[in-house]
Amino acid sequence: MTSRAIRLRSRPVGLPTDDDWELTEDEVGEPGEGEVLVEVQHVSLDPAMRGWISAAASYRRPVEIGAVMDAIAVGRVAASGDGRYAEGDHVMGLLGVQEYAMVPGDGLQQIDPELAPLPKWLGVLGMPGLTAYFGLLDIGRPEPGQTVVVSGAAGAVGSLVGQIAKLQGARAVGIAGGPEKCRYITEELGFDAAIDYKNQDVPAALREACPDKIDVYFDNVGGQILDAALAQLAFGARVVICGAISQYNETGGMRGPANYMSLLVNHASMTGFLVFHYASRYAEGARQMGEWLAAGKLKSREDVEHGIERFPEVFLKLFEGTNDGKLVLAVRD
Amino acid sequence: MTSRAIRLRSRPVGLPTDDDWELTEDEVGEPGEGEVLVEVQHVSLDPAMRGWISAAASYRRPVEIGAVMDAIAVGRVAASGDGRYAEGDHVMGLLGVQEYAMVPGDGLQQIDPELAPLPKWLGVLGMPGLTAYFGLLDIGRPEPGQTVVVSGAAGAVGSLVGQIAKLQGARAVGIAGGPEKCRYITEELGFDAAIDYKNQDVPAALREACPDKIDVYFDNVGGQILDAALAQLAFGARVVICGAISQYNETGGMRGPANYMSLLVNHASMTGFLVFHYASRYAEGARQMGEWLAAGKLKSREDVEHGIERFPEVFLKLFEGTNDGKLVLAVRD
Repeated sequence: MTSRAIRLRSRPVGLPTDDDWELTEDEVGEPGEGEVLVEVQHVSLDPAMRGWISAAASYRRPVEIGAVMDAIAVGRVAASGDGRYAEGDHVMGLLGVQEYAMVPGDGLQQIDPELAPLPKWLGVLGMPGLTAYFGLLDIGRPEPGQTVVVSGAAGAVGSLVGQIAKLQGARAVGIAGGPEKCRYITEELGFDAAIDYKNQDVPAALREACPDKIDVYFDNVGGQILDAALAQLAFGARVVICGAISQYNETGGMRGPANYMSLLVNHASMTGFLVFHYASRYAEGARQMGEWLAAGKLKSREDVEHGIERFPEVFLKLFEGTNDGKLVLAVRD
Repeated sequence: MTSRAIRLRSRPVGLPTDDDWELTEDEVGEPGEGEVLVEVQHVSLDPAMRGWISAAASYRRPVEIGAVMDAIAVGRVAASGDGRYAEGDHVMGLLGVQEYAMVPGDGLQQIDPELAPLPKWLGVLGMPGLTAYFGLLDIGRPEPGQTVVVSGAAGAVGSLVGQIAKLQGARAVGIAGGPEKCRYITEELGFDAAIDYKNQDVPAALREACPDKIDVYFDNVGGQILDAALAQLAFGARVVICGAISQYNETGGMRGPANYMSLLVNHASMTGFLVFHYASRYAEGARQMGEWLAAGKLKSREDVEHGIERFPEVFLKLFEGTNDGKLVLAVRD
């Protein structure tokens, strides 16, 4: 039996190109003691993965040249050398962009495809859901009546941040690219207002949408939008730094938020986090997100593309902003 | 009787020049009901005053063209229409850069020149002292054994931040300009280490001086030094934004901290404040600073220049970094 995989051929400069990737095919062996062979079904594509292939120091070791591209994914156990997993079980873990993953059982988490379709385990019930949950509630701490602004608002994390803000009794204002995404977050997800950064003047639109200024700004994008939000902070505001997708492919270096002195004037804070920092509280977050989802209080949309060989082009949708909800790659065509 | 005053003639572009100021002389009247006439003795010169003369929106209304330059100062009551103050009393308040100030009694605070010489009331016992106290203890919150780094470390605020950090059992590392300032903060103030940003590579020196990384970074300067500190944060670090003196005279706009994603990797926060945000707790801060000073636990140095007419040149010492401790202008020659 063989397994196709997407491997990193070279470190991208700016946006990754087709030439930075390689599709390979290798023999698949039998799992040893403690190992599990997983047939990978759905792969999560996330903005943070751009950082994983940079040489720059970060929170994890970069994917090595020639190695299978890392990715969180869900799949079905094909063979198991770990007593906790049996053939046919569904699991989630850092399985990589490949058809079959041989991984230690320790890194896997059992999931129940009856509770929700597999792609949702990579979104609302997975890392993006936990990211929204902990980032907003532990760092942003919105109070009823306060104004929460989130960028990347139609994305996997942002769409949940706005909905959780509403569940806390806060106002939710989303910044997204294009009229369809803005319609989606207001009409389908219940955001109070949307700002189309591709067609509106963001500073002016923020002033209009946030007459009482911004109490919580949850940032997924960085760059000019972060600066626009900083300029409109309320006294005591909390800025949550979750990502900076506008900067990940910049070849001239990161752009820092020039308006950071607004923190001083407004006694405001800017705090960053990675979802992994909350590992000891995952169970709490997953339980709450599951309850809200089951009760119909959270909506989510997954953009499922097909075919492992299409990884290089599909990955770019994140940076073009053309994905429609949580971007997932189904390994089989 | 007449009073000479320094008035703002034009809004400076970049560093203020002589032409941006005007020395005028006006008649002094008698205080009306509730007013106090103060003979201004010592004027505080602070980096934040550069912001007060910019047109840009800030936390206060800019000094108007033609108006007396605002400044916190200490002086002696010359005549009083407010029963709480008698001739001969010493007071502190927003008196401006002038020989005589006619002000409402409500804005004044009585001070005791027996407790400490007048210039110290503008430093360790005044706003700089309270700034160091609340910024470090309320926002930085250093724990025993943690590493506190402060920029502008030989300045009015920075020199106190390092000493208060030591009083909390933390390690204090100061960044200052030139060997004499570095000697002063280590040998006389008891900092554990000093980094001379004019003669050392700050990132390398920070790595060496902070083997366990930086738990609290108290920033007075912004720019490259802020970026260097961000790159060395410990997990859970607190960055205190107190000022950005390197940026106040920039004509090309503020430079934001490009390394702000270090907040994300390290679950760190960056929080700004103005000392005025702690007005309700001034008494607590002043009492503690007074106790420490009286017990010989805090040292401070004042750089007293003389002559109101020298204000334009003396003010620039702050931005050249040539002041030797808290910069104070004695109004009389």
